[in-house]
Amino acid sequence: ANDGSLFQMCICACLLGREIQMPALVSLVFQIDVEVAKLLELKLRLGGDDVKHQFVLKTPKGTRDYNPKQMAIREKVFNTIVSCFKRHGAETIDTPVFELKETLTGKYGEDSKLIYDLKDQGGELLSLRYDLTVPFARFLAMNKISNIKRYHIAKVYRRDNPAMTRGRYREFYQCDFDIAGHYDPMIPDAECLRIVSEILGELDLGDFHIKVNDRRILDGMFAVCGVPDDKFRTICSTVDKLDKMCWEDVKNEMVKEKGLSEEAADMIGQYVSMQGGMDLAVRLLEDPKMSQSKQACAGLSDMKQLFSYLELFQVTDKVVFDLSLARGLDYYTGVIYEAMLGPAGATPPPPPPPQAGAPKAEESLSVGSVAGGGRYDGLVGMFDPKGRAVPCVGVSIGVERIFSILEQKAEAEKVRTTEVQVLVASAQKNLLEERLRLVTELWNAGIKAESMFKKNPKLLSQLQHCEESGIPLVAILGEQELKNGMVKLRTVATREEVRDSCVCVCVCNSLIAIKSRQC
Amino acid sequence: ANDGSLFQMCICACLLGREIQMPALVSLVFQIDVEVAKLLELKLRLGGDDVKHQFVLKTPKGTRDYNPKQMAIREKVFNTIVSCFKRHGAETIDTPVFELKETLTGKYGEDSKLIYDLKDQGGELLSLRYDLTVPFARFLAMNKISNIKRYHIAKVYRRDNPAMTRGRYREFYQCDFDIAGHYDPMIPDAECLRIVSEILGELDLGDFHIKVNDRRILDGMFAVCGVPDDKFRTICSTVDKLDKMCWEDVKNEMVKEKGLSEEAADMIGQYVSMQGGMDLAVRLLEDPKMSQSKQACAGLSDMKQLFSYLELFQVTDKVVFDLSLARGLDYYTGVIYEAMLGPAGATPPPPPPPQAGAPKAEESLSVGSVAGGGRYDGLVGMFDPKGRAVPCVGVSIGVERIFSILEQKAEAEKVRTTEVQVLVASAQKNLLEERLRLVTELWNAGIKAESMFKKNPKLLSQLQHCEESGIPLVAILGEQELKNGMVKLRTVATREEVRDSCVCVCVCNSLIAIKSRQC
Repeated sequence: ANDGSLFQMCICACLLGREIQMPALVSLVFQIDVEVAKLLELKLRLGGDDVKHQFVLKTPKGTRDYNPKQMAIREKVFNTIVSCFKRHGAETIDTPVFELKETLTGKYGEDSKLIYDLKDQGGELLSLRYDLTVPFARFLAMNKISNIKRYHIAKVYRRDNPAMTRGRYREFYQCDFDIAGHYDPMIPDAECLRIVSEILGELDLGDFHIKVNDRRILDGMFAVCGVPDDKFRTICSTVDKLDKMCWEDVKNEMVKEKGLSEEAADMIGQYVSMQGGMDLAVRLLEDPKMSQSKQACAGLSDMKQLFSYLELFQVTDKVVFDLSLARGLDYYTGVIYEAMLGPAGATPPPPPPPQAGAPKAEESLSVGSVAGGGRYDGLVGMFDPKGRAVPCVGVSIGVERIFSILEQKAEAEKVRTTEVQVLVASAQKNLLEERLRLVTELWNAGIKAESMFKKNPKLLSQLQHCEESGIPLVAILGEQELKNGMVKLRTVATREEVRDSCVCVCVCNSLIAIKSRQC
Repeated sequence: ANDGSLFQMCICACLLGREIQMPALVSLVFQIDVEVAKLLELKLRLGGDDVKHQFVLKTPKGTRDYNPKQMAIREKVFNTIVSCFKRHGAETIDTPVFELKETLTGKYGEDSKLIYDLKDQGGELLSLRYDLTVPFARFLAMNKISNIKRYHIAKVYRRDNPAMTRGRYREFYQCDFDIAGHYDPMIPDAECLRIVSEILGELDLGDFHIKVNDRRILDGMFAVCGVPDDKFRTICSTVDKLDKMCWEDVKNEMVKEKGLSEEAADMIGQYVSMQGGMDLAVRLLEDPKMSQSKQACAGLSDMKQLFSYLELFQVTDKVVFDLSLARGLDYYTGVIYEAMLGPAGATPPPPPPPQAGAPKAEESLSVGSVAGGGRYDGLVGMFDPKGRAVPCVGVSIGVERIFSILEQKAEAEKVRTTEVQVLVASAQKNLLEERLRLVTELWNAGIKAESMFKKNPKLLSQLQHCEESGIPLVAILGEQELKNGMVKLRTVATREEVRDSCVCVCVCNSLIAIKSRQC
């Protein structure tokens, strides 16, 4: 800043026609050079002569690119999930990313405002899919399929307020597993819970638990507590907030905003604080109030049955019957569940700071939730011309949240983004042809190999590339080795070297040796 | 129809107040019953009381669902392709399905009209991606990445005239492999060709060949043939039709529609009939006309170099230097290539019937073409604020066409859509608990297993399920076995049975035995 003032002073002096002494002049010229350099740098930063290239370089709001490291994590997560789905005998399907607009109409209630529509460019009116469940139901009805066990992993789209640091995007993956068909009660439902338990266990996310409830139990509970029929849905969505709000606030909303009587609210309060297992279902079946509701009794008997299957499936330690679980979506008709990280009975996180006036869209999964689902016996019938119902139960794994947890974990770690097993390098110049010949031999043998795309790369830069990419082996060609028809193979980590005439055998042996050391 | 007339006659009689005799009355009443039944059946066929459920049950125009069998084929194809990309050391990335509209603007020339736009619902203007190359270039510029070897498999969207029987959809997969970075000439280009060759060979699609050419050779050729500078692009796109049209028609278009002189067209005709290998490049470098063009010479020298690398990569038998290859996209700057099924030099298919007046959108891949690509050194610079160029070369595998070929092949075959290894069945009633306990044991051991969701399924229907789904093993529980703490394991194909106390070991041994028999 001081120099700048000196510079300005000199300019002023010039403009005013004053004489400038020689030392000052030298200083001035130097100063001019500095300023010119600064200005040119500024110009360059603004885009140089290429300002014509200026536009916003970004992905759309609420979306992101996956870089190679994120893709490596994603691939690992998907492999774990798909292996589990396959272990349980699931097939897979895929549907288009957009559907006819009318296919999605009337399926999501208030959330419909979050659907992305395509522009009318002549032709059909289209919308991006909002979930994978409605396209699945459309697929079943269209192809008259009445039983299937399928998984579907694909991106869905919601014009929601993104919270990307918490893994909430406008474009995000869903991993759905569903069982459609007329079966004996609770057997497929129990398998869905077993699947959630297997996946969360294998992903190594720490402790977790799965809350279960039943829409019929909720409805029965509302009935016996004296909630008017037409308020079931709205009271249900208030109960759904219990994982984010304390009971006092939930009660307030019921009584003050939704006009429920205080006694009814208190009665609900007693029920929704209950948690347990099969014992709780048995107890509630004998509860003088609950037992008056046919619906509640049907739900409670099924809950008892469900727990007996969960015991056979060895997952009762992970599953909690929790009367406060409500889940937002309208289409559920029976069992509902939601998996959360952390041990069962952990206190819910503090309520989020109130955002005055901001119309906050509902989260599809609440805080800490990593999977959710339930039974929806009526949805397929909405698509069938004759209204024939196909009972369904399913689960959706919240992979985006899982990605962000694992991405945070991996921040410090080195994650390999390629699987190259050996780099073909050269120690001297003019060995490009020999390198390409050798890398071809390795590819022919099915070995993952590469070589630098430069004619004469330095040995050091080739070795650095191995370090950076985690390539375990480097085949180093030198004139001596070529003369003897040999190749030198170095294990990067240990710097051990072997020489052999057959590089393929040599690579395979070394990989086995490395693997056995890691075990 | 006769009975109908009798019925109408009776009705008329009633309406006219005539008396009807007893036998006629009985007949009439019976007739009424029949007619009522017919009408009710008709009503049911029209949707019964559920006509409110009527809407169009379909996927959007030009799109399709993938059923489990198609998914099994798709998975196999992707596995082959991804293994190859990984063998060559590629990382993978993913980008959002939509981009800012301006990101796509000015990249596709006339084809821009085929871009799907999203509706303006407030916020940014968005479009569905049209290919994976432009998002890749945007990704490189945005993240200032100057070298990477990456693949990207994802769906792209074009509002084209679909020809779904030939594997042309509005939503379709692209499998792209690209190498970005400043490297010595032709080494990455040759690797792309090696990759195409590996993939097409491994997919077992029969004979194939890859045509190569260079944009600079084309431009040089046009120059020495006397094509005016401003007609290069349009003459180039006429040449591009040589795989669908005979030379006479192409010449006609050049001369009559595009106003080229007849001599110039004839001269082009001589060049574009040339095919060969490195020898052709050498000969053309000495061609008195071609050698006058600096551009052509640069392209031809690189072509010579390319073939020397292709020789080291052992793929010269699959690659043909073909001066008629032009490729539509504007952004290519150097080598271009296209892989076709069938042996090299096969006569092109007959021209398609002329569709008078129909504005036919260009196909991105011509008939028989299953992969294509080339060098595009200028695209990333279009996104960089400073216009810094990142040279790129890449290839796109036309998987949709490959899917339809393999789907047709698989029509007669039985393709497994699940990977279940063993069905847990019961020979008697009331063994549900035992079945669930056993299937849990198998899941715990990582074995792919399932059991019917019915309490008391018939043994026959359980065995039929194995036949239909291709499940190789069935563990049959019976009271006798349970008493002895044993399980009976049957190999479905051979009906061989073994009894053992440890079902997991037994399953693994049997799977190995089945596998060894298949080899």
